[in-house]
Amino acid sequence: MKDNPPRRTGGRAARRASRAAPLDDAIRPVRPGMECDALKVLSQTDILKIHNAALQVLEEIGLADAPQSGIDHMTRAGAIHGTDGRMRFPRALVEDTVAHANRQIMLYSRDGKRDLELSGNRVHYGTAGAAVNMVDVDGRNYRDSTLQDLHDAARITDRLDNIHFLQRPMVPRDITDSREMDLNTLYACTAGTTKHVGVSFSDPSHVADAFEMLHLIAGGEAEWRARPFVSNSNCFVVPPMKFATEACQTMELCIEGGMPVLLLSAGMAGATTPSTIAGAIVQSVAECLAGLVYVNAVRPGAPAIFGTWPFGLDLRSGAMTGGSGEQALLSAGCAQMHKFYGLPGGAVGGITDAKLPDMQAGWESMCSNVMAGLSGLNMVYEAAGMHASLLGFCHESLILGDDLIGHALRCVRGIEVDDETLAVEQIREVCLQGPGHYLGMGQTLARMQRDYVYPSTGERMSPKEWVEKDKPDLNQSAIRRKEAILSEPSLARFDPLTDRAIRDRFKIHLAG
Amino acid sequence: MKDNPPRRTGGRAARRASRAAPLDDAIRPVRPGMECDALKVLSQTDILKIHNAALQVLEEIGLADAPQSGIDHMTRAGAIHGTDGRMRFPRALVEDTVAHANRQIMLYSRDGKRDLELSGNRVHYGTAGAAVNMVDVDGRNYRDSTLQDLHDAARITDRLDNIHFLQRPMVPRDITDSREMDLNTLYACTAGTTKHVGVSFSDPSHVADAFEMLHLIAGGEAEWRARPFVSNSNCFVVPPMKFATEACQTMELCIEGGMPVLLLSAGMAGATTPSTIAGAIVQSVAECLAGLVYVNAVRPGAPAIFGTWPFGLDLRSGAMTGGSGEQALLSAGCAQMHKFYGLPGGAVGGITDAKLPDMQAGWESMCSNVMAGLSGLNMVYEAAGMHASLLGFCHESLILGDDLIGHALRCVRGIEVDDETLAVEQIREVCLQGPGHYLGMGQTLARMQRDYVYPSTGERMSPKEWVEKDKPDLNQSAIRRKEAILSEPSLARFDPLTDRAIRDRFKIHLAG
Repeated sequence: MKDNPPRRTGGRAARRASRAAPLDDAIRPVRPGMECDALKVLSQTDILKIHNAALQVLEEIGLADAPQSGIDHMTRAGAIHGTDGRMRFPRALVEDTVAHANRQIMLYSRDGKRDLELSGNRVHYGTAGAAVNMVDVDGRNYRDSTLQDLHDAARITDRLDNIHFLQRPMVPRDITDSREMDLNTLYACTAGTTKHVGVSFSDPSHVADAFEMLHLIAGGEAEWRARPFVSNSNCFVVPPMKFATEACQTMELCIEGGMPVLLLSAGMAGATTPSTIAGAIVQSVAECLAGLVYVNAVRPGAPAIFGTWPFGLDLRSGAMTGGSGEQALLSAGCAQMHKFYGLPGGAVGGITDAKLPDMQAGWESMCSNVMAGLSGLNMVYEAAGMHASLLGFCHESLILGDDLIGHALRCVRGIEVDDETLAVEQIREVCLQGPGHYLGMGQTLARMQRDYVYPSTGERMSPKEWVEKDKPDLNQSAIRRKEAILSEPSLARFDPLTDRAIRDRFKIHLAG
Repeated sequence: MKDNPPRRTGGRAARRASRAAPLDDAIRPVRPGMECDALKVLSQTDILKIHNAALQVLEEIGLADAPQSGIDHMTRAGAIHGTDGRMRFPRALVEDTVAHANRQIMLYSRDGKRDLELSGNRVHYGTAGAAVNMVDVDGRNYRDSTLQDLHDAARITDRLDNIHFLQRPMVPRDITDSREMDLNTLYACTAGTTKHVGVSFSDPSHVADAFEMLHLIAGGEAEWRARPFVSNSNCFVVPPMKFATEACQTMELCIEGGMPVLLLSAGMAGATTPSTIAGAIVQSVAECLAGLVYVNAVRPGAPAIFGTWPFGLDLRSGAMTGGSGEQALLSAGCAQMHKFYGLPGGAVGGITDAKLPDMQAGWESMCSNVMAGLSGLNMVYEAAGMHASLLGFCHESLILGDDLIGHALRCVRGIEVDDETLAVEQIREVCLQGPGHYLGMGQTLARMQRDYVYPSTGERMSPKEWVEKDKPDLNQSAIRRKEAILSEPSLARFDPLTDRAIRDRFKIHLAG
């Protein structure tokens, strides 16, 4: 600071010139994989209690319904298959598995530019879910979601800086055959974005076809295995504490094919897990630890994301709710358990119970998203677009979610404290020699873009300007942005030869 | 747990019976003054750097423009009035002041039931500000705010559980005389709610009249001094680093009259404080420390709230923005500085830049509110109702803010971890002996109300139910709730004799 005294420049004109310059990627104020561990909703004592309770549950209660292949894998690793059909896990087996599991997972992008490294406190936000409705904002209506809706969601995601991955957020209900649904879902997602994609398979028998398509897209099996750009979102467990037999078989096939697995335990607090937040976390952690033993018994070190996804429940109605404060605590608590184990993990954020992108949607989505990020959650699933407690997906909310998550990411980035940012010499100059304000200071201008996040669709007009601009409506602005994105050609589309090969081999429902 | 095995009851019927019972205050899931310190956006090293920078600023740069009375008070305490007119504060003076300042402030309610204890990590949310516009949600319009609007805001606040205090949020622009404006503001607020009220005075000469009114309301000066139910929001400083001469005189009078003071430093990062978050906090802390020395020089131990309110600025336009991620970090960082000093403190949360209660309003308001609460901020000002970067106040957003803050408070309450909540025995029973789910468990029912926060105006309907109920609009629901509250008589109104005495003495613009 002393060697390089603050430079005063031309104020408003300089600010204008400075903001006209394109934003260099290197000074983008937020980006995928920023690290944060500022929020700790659990104390270290709490974490140990949850850990010990989970180990007790695994050792004494265990999980039912493993497929025979899983029984073989897990008993070989040291689990105990009881006469009551439940698989129990000695404490030492679980601890050894945690110690040797894969702690740094790369989720590859197809374009090679947007890979996600899952480790430490690195935070990423993306979509997920299985909504069955598409939210029509202009018509205030819910209708069946379609394959085109899903493809459009992928195309929109591809263009939004703060949506870091696309896990399949909705089900194409215009496709009735379950095999065609899985394969077209894979096509619609990967043809819409080169960011990392997550899908699920409704039957183990669909997996081979999916790999065939992925090898076509990648240009060969070796190319696919070198950079797997699709992962398998796998509901390997039916809470409480039962393996999902067929999903486990799917999981084994995915591991063998080199696909990263999201070990997804989706309990509902008060229905399929205990109603207490701590109890829901205990059970989710126990289930995911069982899944981790399973994965590592199939292939040691196979990439598996610790997917504790406990959901909230409205106990008055018995219906799911994803937009509560309890939900934000569930996911933030899970994030801390992932850190305790040092395992790449994911949980849910961003869900709203509101039907439309209204103020409730905003507050619910922000609360869980920002708390997840501040907790260092590696993968925040369902972070944008999810309405009606996961039943509806909304393109406009996805677009608004990009602003919302950018805002959350600014909080994740945190506060830089050093001699320059403490700014004692700036204060001295402004108060004792300067103009009495900081607007024209060189430091202010230099930081205008690299320190501050500005909304894209959200606005900051004065009431006067707002009136002059005919009082723009936020949702209408989002609709316009959606239409602009969808009117442009998708950059993620496959080259014509590849696309031809895929279409020759599979029945693709999207128009070519 | 073992002595009192889980009781299974009749499921849905039992849930219905249980939720029909009125909610006992003792089991309310959230309440004012809950404690939290889960969020730490600053490390201990960062905090010490900021502290030392603030001390350096006070010692070397100091503050200009103290009134003569303040110069006398502060030099007597040990501050140094320089030949350049600036008051400088030796490190030891500041440290001694912090050590001996009032660390536990009661903000009294008029009804005696809703007092706020400011200490430790106890969190309270309320209104504040000086909006000049009233947001008309139905008409999508901004118009001048009036005394009736202010009184209505007080009446609505009185009825909302999660709005814990009413600091004057808007200016009655239908009153042109500044003395009448101050006195009618005091009347409109206190006649609308028995919760603690905050007001400001635009001129020291108004303070005596205000005390006269307060003594009338309280039933005498002794009664007022025993339980001062109004505090003075005092902009004692004009950032950067200048005392606001007249506000300081007002402050001295308020201290003498037994009124708690909010030491409000309202800088704008990039204009009147450095643009960096750390620098803005340094300057705000320095200014409030100077204010604290001043207050304690006037009367040792006088109740003063450490009001670091740095605001964000949109550096592209030079206009204020209160809805950014940077704003959330500013306030969360300030909260940690309050904890470091062990002083009751306040900062801003909840502000939105949006013009109407839309999704942007929701996400912006939640981000700063929940981060403030998780940081243990004692007083979260401007927490509800504030639009257009503080230029507009909205009754409907105040009502929706009650839900939003209830949600944030649920996060503040955090996760209880003990043998009961860990629920190992519940998991064992459900998995090994029970029905395979937790819905009917006694523990689930018992916690339905005391653990979970339900929205009042927000909704959690399924899409089907939403259609059946004619797709209710959130803002229309808020309008209906507003109309219902305002159609009922105010419980805060003064008794007729007191009201008569006030009206005989002062020109009250509100109809009797």
